[in-house]
Amino acid sequence: MHLEEKTIDSQPIFKGRIIEVKLDRVLLPNGQESTREIVLHAGAVAIIAIDDEDNLYLVRQYRKPLERTLIEVPAGTLEAGENPLDCARRELEEETGMKAAHWERLISYYSAPGFCNEILHIFLATGLHAGSTHPDQDEFVELVTMPLLQAYKAVAKGEIVDGKSIIAIQMVQLKRAEQ
Amino acid sequence: MHLEEKTIDSQPIFKGRIIEVKLDRVLLPNGQESTREIVLHAGAVAIIAIDDEDNLYLVRQYRKPLERTLIEVPAGTLEAGENPLDCARRELEEETGMKAAHWERLISYYSAPGFCNEILHIFLATGLHAGSTHPDQDEFVELVTMPLLQAYKAVAKGEIVDGKSIIAIQMVQLKRAEQ
Repeated sequence: MHLEEKTIDSQPIFKGRIIEVKLDRVLLPNGQESTREIVLHAGAVAIIAIDDEDNLYLVRQYRKPLERTLIEVPAGTLEAGENPLDCARRELEEETGMKAAHWERLISYYSAPGFCNEILHIFLATGLHAGSTHPDQDEFVELVTMPLLQAYKAVAKGEIVDGKSIIAIQMVQLKRAEQ
Repeated sequence: MHLEEKTIDSQPIFKGRIIEVKLDRVLLPNGQESTREIVLHAGAVAIIAIDDEDNLYLVRQYRKPLERTLIEVPAGTLEAGENPLDCARRELEEETGMKAAHWERLISYYSAPGFCNEILHIFLATGLHAGSTHPDQDEFVELVTMPLLQAYKAVAKGEIVDGKSIIAIQMVQLKRAEQ
């Protein structure tokens, strides 16, 4: 089955610091025309950091699109050409003050492929120890630590509602179940 | 810790069929000003549909933001004021031709809260049977069925890379592990 949509033209709408927006006119598989509203994003990393006592290092931060705070795994947007693991190391220390001895990439996925090209790389960080720097005060994040099992229950109770955090917590929980 | 960002002003950038974009100027907790690029979305539903032989009903579709096809759970955008379950029933039948006897809401979560307010409601649909209508030819989706375990392995292998599909498959797999 032919599914591809060919671009007829592409109209730039907005270019910000985090996102770009464009409006593509496309040729559908049936020969008709339509438009596609597209948000371009440089990609991001997220880190599920677990200490030797099975505590997760999470952050609470204000999310302006929702006008509320969320509890999430530490995360950050990739800079142009940046290696995802380098970005993950930097973000973990900036947001939690912690470094990790062991890093493992768990998964890379698209957060909202219907309208956005953002890819998210999730890393598991273990062997945690305090870094040399304090968390960046301009990050405006509050550190929240909780046992992995409590975080897993917080997903079921609707207390953790951020997609990347849910995927990260469930992946680690599934790895445990398989062992 | 005070985390809230107060809106100083809000500039409309774009209003499309699926998304709106605005640029907010905000007052940060430290009294400095910044901007927030915000994508507004009406919300969506996704359906993990499993038949009595433990096969998943998935769809392959072209995602213009990625310029590639993805295998995903059936999904669709909420219309204004639409009940999520009504939307889920409609989308399942439109995309797969199937109806379900049993519906359960698994989770509601934010796909990309850093820049977008999209909320996704995931439903588990079981007791599947063929509906009265054929899949909508204008949906341009290809039905893909596979056993749940194969889908779970496809996530690990990077063959299923869509966030909502990953969360849905992991949640069902975790429910099985707990039984």
